[in-house]
Amino acid sequence: MSEKLTHFDAEGKAIMVDVGDKQSTSRKALACGEIRMQQATLKRIMDRNIEKGDVFGIARIAGIMAAKQTSGLIPLCHPLALTSVELEFNPLIEQGCVEISATAKVNGQTGVEMEALTAVSVAALTIYDMCKAVDKLMVIGAIRLEQKSGGKSGDFSRPQDG
Amino acid sequence: MSEKLTHFDAEGKAIMVDVGDKQSTSRKALACGEIRMQQATLKRIMDRNIEKGDVFGIARIAGIMAAKQTSGLIPLCHPLALTSVELEFNPLIEQGCVEISATAKVNGQTGVEMEALTAVSVAALTIYDMCKAVDKLMVIGAIRLEQKSGGKSGDFSRPQDG
Amino acid sequence: MSEKLTHFDAEGKAIMVDVGDKQSTSRKALACGEIRMQQATLKRIMDRNIEKGDVFGIARIAGIMAAKQTSGLIPLCHPLALTSVELEFNPLIEQGCVEISATAKVNGQTGVEMEALTAVSVAALTIYDMCKAVDKLMVIGAIRLEQKSGGKSGDFSRPQDG
Amino acid sequence: MSEKLTHFDAEGKAIMVDVGDKQSTSRKALACGEIRMQQATLKRIMDRNIEKGDVFGIARIAGIMAAKQTSGLIPLCHPLALTSVELEFNPLIEQGCVEISATAKVNGQTGVEMEALTAVSVAALTIYDMCKAVDKLMVIGAIRLEQKSGGKSGDFSRPQDG
Amino acid sequence: MSEKLTHFDAEGKAIMVDVGDKQSTSRKALACGEIRMQQATLKRIMDRNIEKGDVFGIARIAGIMAAKQTSGLIPLCHPLALTSVELEFNPLIEQGCVEISATAKVNGQTGVEMEALTAVSVAALTIYDMCKAVDKLMVIGAIRLEQKSGGKSGDFSRPQDG
Amino acid sequence: MSEKLTHFDAEGKAIMVDVGDKQSTSRKALACGEIRMQQATLKRIMDRNIEKGDVFGIARIAGIMAAKQTSGLIPLCHPLALTSVELEFNPLIEQGCVEISATAKVNGQTGVEMEALTAVSVAALTIYDMCKAVDKLMVIGAIRLEQKSGGKSGDFSRPQDG
Repeated sequence: MSEKLTHFDAEGKAIMVDVGDKQSTSRKALACGEIRMQQATLKRIMDRNIEKGDVFGIARIAGIMAAKQTSGLIPLCHPLALTSVELEFNPLIEQGCVEISATAKVNGQTGVEMEALTAVSVAALTIYDMCKAVDKLMVIGAIRLEQKSGGKSGDFSRPQDG
Repeated sequence: MSEKLTHFDAEGKAIMVDVGDKQSTSRKALACGEIRMQQATLKRIMDRNIEKGDVFGIARIAGIMAAKQTSGLIPLCHPLALTSVELEFNPLIEQGCVEISATAKVNGQTGVEMEALTAVSVAALTIYDMCKAVDKLMVIGAIRLEQKSGGKSGDFSRPQDG
Repeated sequence: MSEKLTHFDAEGKAIMVDVGDKQSTSRKALACGEIRMQQATLKRIMDRNIEKGDVFGIARIAGIMAAKQTSGLIPLCHPLALTSVELEFNPLIEQGCVEISATAKVNGQTGVEMEALTAVSVAALTIYDMCKAVDKLMVIGAIRLEQKSGGKSGDFSRPQDG
Repeated sequence: MSEKLTHFDAEGKAIMVDVGDKQSTSRKALACGEIRMQQATLKRIMDRNIEKGDVFGIARIAGIMAAKQTSGLIPLCHPLALTSVELEFNPLIEQGCVEISATAKVNGQTGVEMEALTAVSVAALTIYDMCKAVDKLMVIGAIRLEQKSGGKSGDFSRPQDG
Repeated sequence: MSEKLTHFDAEGKAIMVDVGDKQSTSRKALACGEIRMQQATLKRIMDRNIEKGDVFGIARIAGIMAAKQTSGLIPLCHPLALTSVELEFNPLIEQGCVEISATAKVNGQTGVEMEALTAVSVAALTIYDMCKAVDKLMVIGAIRLEQKSGGKSGDFSRPQDG
Repeated sequence: MSEKLTHFDAEGKAIMVDVGDKQSTSRKALACGEIRMQQATLKRIMDRNIEKGDVFGIARIAGIMAAKQTSGLIPLCHPLALTSVELEFNPLIEQGCVEISATAKVNGQTGVEMEALTAVSVAALTIYDMCKAVDKLMVIGAIRLEQKSGGKSGDFSRPQDG
């Protein structure tokens, strides 16, 4: 852990790090998270999916659109021309939990962790919004980076027990 | 738990719920969350705060600005003229954890849970962004509604063991 | 037709019309439009709906979110706290046409025609985007105001042959 | 018509298509549309142009700015660094019609049809907004792609009777 | 000068000031500024106006649209439903100077100084952008509040020698 | 001064200049400006900095975020993938003045003057906003381009007496 907090200069002033000299490479990041809820809430979501009210479909769109807004939300993030965003929702009815994952890709000079993490976060918030009338106890959590490739700092895979 | 998923009409189509007939009242919501990291990472944040690189200060601004963008991020959220947003950061060095809380207020026809939850989420993502060069294992979690007042559905306080 | 182009002052300069003295009333607008395509394209959309790829569901979300961005798109539009937005899609397979309608509501000092028209337009553009790989000949049209109520200028209903 | 709806994966989930492996080429799109109105309305627009109230000038700016916001409006559109946007307005007084065309260009991995179509749509909506006090019967229509070049799928020109 | 810096709480943390208990009144602000340039540059602007390239017309639209984005730009500004925005441009050819003024109005719980000042600033930047190919020495300055009315702190008029 | 106003075509219509054939080079711009205030106001800012209310820290974040929004604010600006933004604040207590400078960088086909100038302007407006309760006489001024490099028009440095 020898690197420093790169978003501050020597005097401690916040900067948008200069990535102009970094190589433009194909970069990818996978982030995950979850939203926990009462089992009955999740059943209701699943039932409606079988009908037509598509909670996950809407959360997926919200996540994709949020990924594109990342540099407008996170102060020191660079604007990026994302080439791909995908989200997955895995409902675990027994546990009353929906696992969410997002993959973002770019050909560029900086990584896309923040885009993937933002997609997961806003997808979870969107599920929360659509279910809050029936369940105010939902908890969003376990939002983390799972994998990252491209860029000179090398690939990253979260250790299994992470 | 008799209420239905209000963001869908009888046929299951997504709608922005009609709040036009709801009373305009003074509403408030308190949301909380946390970001867990290596103890060394948190110490570095705290040290820099003692110097001048103000991680929490920047995350606070990001959270406030994100609260104002909530209806642009969450598809079925109503636009709201927020009257106040405040964020608190409570670093727990022993546990390698920063607790984040956000309070949002409005005089309006619908609640501000989503604004408070969005402020917490984006503040956590901002801390992640500024520390990711030194710690890729950080986890954002426990994002939840703690309190809510105003509006006809009555006040809400999360049970202690929530 | 005695009223003047209200978005210009006496010297012809563009202004955001002063609505500060207008009464805050409950206002509503209904706009419609359509997107014409090859019959085969529409069948494909409908088939996928029966599967899971929900073209209309995504267009609905895009329309709702666009309605909220109207004052950021149309230079002289007032920002409004919309209380409701709804969209309907009516596929006419024989004609190779999808009819789109949007209803917007507000309690405010100015009407919501532009919000309803923007919702229809962006929903149609979103359908176009999702089908353009299979059909480049689609045409968006007949975007118009159908009804409007609230406000001192009185209610409006488009004549049948409009 | 053998291609599939590319914005959905094999399971029917919406995705922002991965364009990371497509070649970065010089791409261009030309979209057209029109807004029909009472002859008297169009005359008034033209008269004011001769004075100073420049309806088309404002609609042009709105169209250019909207083209830059396309990926924020259309859920599955890629963010693009547009290199050029131009709009033309062709008033046909006899027919009470304004023809609108927009050309967008990029050096990138995906086409700019949606940017050109969005520019035309928002320019038309802006004309509608500025004239709606004198004419509520205006109709926006015939929004379509006319030409497209660059990219591996080859050039496209709309057939004359399209 | 006894008031404190209201955007910080007792501990020095930034807050979006709580205006929920302030009275909703009719508020207005007038801000002014200028952009200085070579006489030849200004003549060129004026000549083009006489032709058709309307520098001030575009700067006016930019200023109006920016006023609507103020709370997205200035971190601790409240979102406001502006009821009116107007800009004036006064070219002084002898001095090589364009005076810019903007008036913003709202019925709300907080003032609109920042909206008027933002409108002036972005209008000036827009003039700069359109003329920078012929004159890189332009200077934007004298951006200030001239008048303010509404709200409990009383009306303000800048002293003549301000 | 032989170049023409490039943002207008031969007929005087506004265009987003076509930069598609310009070379993608490493470009940089340095802009400066200032905000003048009562000495007592500046002392208060400095005192609070010594405590914890970090006016310059917040203005720095606002400036960086505004730089990223430049093409959404200035109608004919191209969207750019900024690689770096930095701001400096230099308080001159005797003069009651804060000097602000911003450096923006990009690898691209067009310059970043407008991004640097926008960062300075919004940083100044943010300081104004945070201090306006104690000082309504502040004046923002001297916003100008100081240096520019990269691109075929050659490097620019403002003459000393500029």
